[in-house]
Amino acid sequence: MSSSPTPRSFTVNSIGAVQSPRTEPIDDDWGNIESTIELDQSQFETDVLAGLSDFSHIDVVYLFDQVDEASINLGSRHPRNRADWPRVGIFAQRAKARPNRIGVTTCELVDVAGLTLTVRGLDAIDGTPVLDIKPHVVEFQARTPVRQPAWIGELMANYW
Amino acid sequence: MSSSPTPRSFTVNSIGAVQSPRTEPIDDDWGNIESTIELDQSQFETDVLAGLSDFSHIDVVYLFDQVDEASINLGSRHPRNRADWPRVGIFAQRAKARPNRIGVTTCELVDVAGLTLTVRGLDAIDGTPVLDIKPHVVEFQARTPVRQPAWIGELMANYW
Repeated sequence: MSSSPTPRSFTVNSIGAVQSPRTEPIDDDWGNIESTIELDQSQFETDVLAGLSDFSHIDVVYLFDQVDEASINLGSRHPRNRADWPRVGIFAQRAKARPNRIGVTTCELVDVAGLTLTVRGLDAIDGTPVLDIKPHVVEFQARTPVRQPAWIGELMANYW
Repeated sequence: MSSSPTPRSFTVNSIGAVQSPRTEPIDDDWGNIESTIELDQSQFETDVLAGLSDFSHIDVVYLFDQVDEASINLGSRHPRNRADWPRVGIFAQRAKARPNRIGVTTCELVDVAGLTLTVRGLDAIDGTPVLDIKPHVVEFQARTPVRQPAWIGELMANYW
């Protein structure tokens, strides 16, 4: 057990990009932001989105490309520098300065038109490269009761 | 609007790998599978997991590395070749043969010891490279009622 795996590298390509009224990485108030995801016309036909509008929500996988990789701190720290919250490691937070800079967010799917998806509540700024879109499926939600520490609820109080 | 974004490429590195009793990509019965995620000791100290055990669940981002990229079909199709289910596009399914081959699954966090996470209900086979681990946060779940088509509930009936 605990044999350390060999690191492997993979190339991923953006499938599209976010067009958002929000151009700065502000911490809070994402809930009412309406944005679009424009899929890349050179890779895809509208067929890739067939049936998606039957789902109310999507899970968007994207890449925090504006995060300088040199800024990724692997030591534990107080989220948002709040000394009253515990020091936690990067994999115990959802902060953007993380290894591989991948974000995953569930948001409302408002409309699908051609290769353009309109969404509400996507916490990604204008220009963010999108790596994947998945339908949000009830059976993929947590299957047992969820427990989390108090600090994250406090952090999330004004997020949406 | 609807200007097509320019595709961009990024390199991602595995942060660790799954050690699972399941070595073949079987469709169903993932719910009771207990597996471990071994983080890469050359990249990380245990500090990266500080505080994670206060969460009951994690969201695991991984890469379906066994999927031949040439097999990724961008046309719409019947999921699992079930002709009684509608033809849907790859972004309206969670099938593994998808652009960038990224999977995202919420699973139970059973234990954290050093750089080893024990999890239950992770639908990734032995050796799967892991790209990210995020705490599962209630406020990141769908914030409005979820609607989905009947076929996906049928597909998921025996998944866990």
